[in-house]
Amino acid sequence: MAERRLNEQVRIVGSGLLGASIGLGLRQHGVDVILDDASPSSLRLAVDYGAGRVSAETDSPALIVVCVPPDVTATVVARELANFPEALVTDVASVKTAPLNELRALGADLSRYLGTHPMAGRERGGPIAARADLFLGRPWVIAGHDDITYRRAGAIEDMILDLGAVPVEMAVEDHDAAVALVSHVPQVVASLMAARLGDGKNGALALAGQGVRDVTRIAASDPALWVQILAANAIPVANILRDFRTDLDAVIDALEHPVASGSRRGIADTIAAGNDGVARLPGKHGQDRRFSQLVVKIDDRPGELARLLTDIGEVDINMEDLRLEHSPGAQIGLAEISVLPEVEERLARELDARGWKIAGAYA
Amino acid sequence: MAERRLNEQVRIVGSGLLGASIGLGLRQHGVDVILDDASPSSLRLAVDYGAGRVSAETDSPALIVVCVPPDVTATVVARELANFPEALVTDVASVKTAPLNELRALGADLSRYLGTHPMAGRERGGPIAARADLFLGRPWVIAGHDDITYRRAGAIEDMILDLGAVPVEMAVEDHDAAVALVSHVPQVVASLMAARLGDGKNGALALAGQGVRDVTRIAASDPALWVQILAANAIPVANILRDFRTDLDAVIDALEHPVASGSRRGIADTIAAGNDGVARLPGKHGQDRRFSQLVVKIDDRPGELARLLTDIGEVDINMEDLRLEHSPGAQIGLAEISVLPEVEERLARELDARGWKIAGAYA
Repeated sequence: MAERRLNEQVRIVGSGLLGASIGLGLRQHGVDVILDDASPSSLRLAVDYGAGRVSAETDSPALIVVCVPPDVTATVVARELANFPEALVTDVASVKTAPLNELRALGADLSRYLGTHPMAGRERGGPIAARADLFLGRPWVIAGHDDITYRRAGAIEDMILDLGAVPVEMAVEDHDAAVALVSHVPQVVASLMAARLGDGKNGALALAGQGVRDVTRIAASDPALWVQILAANAIPVANILRDFRTDLDAVIDALEHPVASGSRRGIADTIAAGNDGVARLPGKHGQDRRFSQLVVKIDDRPGELARLLTDIGEVDINMEDLRLEHSPGAQIGLAEISVLPEVEERLARELDARGWKIAGAYA
Repeated sequence: MAERRLNEQVRIVGSGLLGASIGLGLRQHGVDVILDDASPSSLRLAVDYGAGRVSAETDSPALIVVCVPPDVTATVVARELANFPEALVTDVASVKTAPLNELRALGADLSRYLGTHPMAGRERGGPIAARADLFLGRPWVIAGHDDITYRRAGAIEDMILDLGAVPVEMAVEDHDAAVALVSHVPQVVASLMAARLGDGKNGALALAGQGVRDVTRIAASDPALWVQILAANAIPVANILRDFRTDLDAVIDALEHPVASGSRRGIADTIAAGNDGVARLPGKHGQDRRFSQLVVKIDDRPGELARLLTDIGEVDINMEDLRLEHSPGAQIGLAEISVLPEVEERLARELDARGWKIAGAYA
C-alpha cells in the first residue's frame, strides 16, 4: 500500500472516466471510496473494476468529488453540499466560472466548495477507459475563489498529491481563459479543419500525409460532451476565435490579392507567428529541452521494432520519444527516435554496427 | 545494386532535401546523377553525401529534375529546356498549375515538360536531411497536361518507380485542389492556431496537452517556403479557407448567443462534421480499416518498451501502429498499440500473462 496524505472517507459522484480513475487511484492508497452514479450499470461496472464500493447508511464522507458532465455539475454539487452538511465538495469539470456562478445563484454554501480540473483524459471515456495512473504527473488546476478558506481546502490538495498529479492554483477566470486557449479553441479549429475534408474527393484524401492527420486527430472527439464544454466557456473561447478570425481574414485577403503590396509579407508574418507560438509549448517532462532525432528504417513485420528497441536498450540509451512513420501502401516504416543530443552520435554508431539503416539524423 | 528501370543519365537542379534525396535514391540504383545548385556550398555538401557528381563538358542528360523553390521553378525549367534541347524535364514543386501557366507564357517547349509532386518531405529541409528512402511507398503525383505525349513521359514514371514511390496521375487543377485541402490549408490553420499561443500566459501554456501539440506541430514550418507555396496556390487555398470561415463564423455566432434556439445544435453539428471528415482520412497501408487499441503501462527506462514489443513479436502479432503518451514530469509512459480487432483479445491475454499492466482497451 502506497503512502498517503488523505485519510478521510471520499465519496465520488459519477463513475465515468475521471470518477472511476480517481476511485482506482485512491483505492491503491487504501482510501475508503464510496461510488455513486445515476446509472446503475455504470456504477456496477466501476465497482467491479475496483474503483470503490456502493454507499451505506453509516457513510460520512469528508470529501466529495463530483465527476459529472459540465451541464449538471453545479446542480449535483449543490445537492451534495445540502445532503452532506459537513463535507468539503469539489468537482472536476473542465470549466470553472460557469459552475461557480451557478452555485452562487443557487445560494449554495461556497465555504465548502472548491472546483478543480485535472488536465488528463482521453478521446474515449467511460469507466472502461479508467486507470489509476491517469493523473500521474499531470497538472491539476485548483480554481480558487474568495468564499473558502485556505485551511478548509487542504483535503483537495491531499487527494491531488495522492493521485500523483501536480496541483496548480489559478483563479477561475484565468483557468477558463487558459483551457480556452490550449484545449477548447484547438478542438474547434481541428473540427473545422476536419469538416472541410468531408468535401474532398477520395483522390485528394489519398494524398494526405502526417501533417493533416495531426492537425485533425482530436476532431474525433464526442460532439455531445464538447457542446457542453464550449457552451460553458463560450466567452473566452469566442474571444480567441475572433482573434483567430482576424488573422484568417488577413490571410484570405492576401491570397485574394497575391500581388498587392505587403500581401506576401503578411502571410510570412502569420507563419512566423505560428513558429513563435508553437515554440512556447513546454516539452516532455515539462522541460523546454530539445532532443535529437535519428530516423531508422524498419520492416513492417512482427518483431522488427522490438529488435530495434532491444538494441537501443542494450547500449543503455534512453529513448525520449518514438514516432512511427508509415508509408501508405508500403511494407516498411520509419522509426523516428528522440534521444538526448549528447548520445545521438553514439546511438547512430551502435545501430549502424548492428546493421540498422539510419535514414536520417537531425537536431 | 538494386534493379532499375531508368538507364539514362539524370541531371538534378537544386540539391536541397528533395533534390539530394532523389540523387541518393538513384545512385543506389547505379544511375549516373549530375548535380547542380546555385549555391556552391550546398552542391559540395550534396556531392559529399553521395547524391551525385558535379557536371562535366560531355554530359548529355536524358532526364532533368528541377528541385528548386516554387517561385523560381518555371524560370529554371524553361532554362533547362533551352539548354538541353533533347532532354525531358520535370520538377517537384508542390504546386502545378502556376508553373505550367508560366512556362506556357514563356513559350517553353511543353512537349518535353511534365510536372510532378512527390508527397514526401520533412519539417527540416536541406541536403543534410536527405535520404534515399524519402519517397518509399509515398504517392508521387504526375500532373498531366495535353502538350506532352504518353510515350515521351516514360522516364519520369521509371524514376518514380526506381525511388520506390507510387505514381499517381492527376490533372494539374485536381492536384492543386487536393494539396490545398490536405496540405496547404492545414498548414495555414495550424499556423493561425499556433499564433494564438503567442498571446497566452506561461501558466496557460503549462496546461497544454497532446491535443494542442498535435494541432500545431506543423506550425514549425519555414515561413519563406510557405509564402511561395501559398501564393502559388492562392485560389484553391482561399476557396477552402472561405468555407472554413463560414463555419467559423457560425461557431462564433453560436458561442455569442449560447441560449439562442439552435445554437447548441449548430456547435454539435460542427463537431460531428469534424468526426466524419477525420474518419475519411485513409489509414495505414492506404486502407480505411479501423484497428483496436490496447494501452499498456511502461516504465520510462531503457529497454522497457523493447521488452514489451519483444513480447508482442513473440506471440506473432503484428503491431499496426504505436503511439507513446508521456506524462509530463512523470517517469512512466503509456504505449497505445494498434492491432487488428480479431487479435486484440488474444494480445491482451498474452500480455497480461507476461505481467504487463493493460491500462485500457478500445476499438
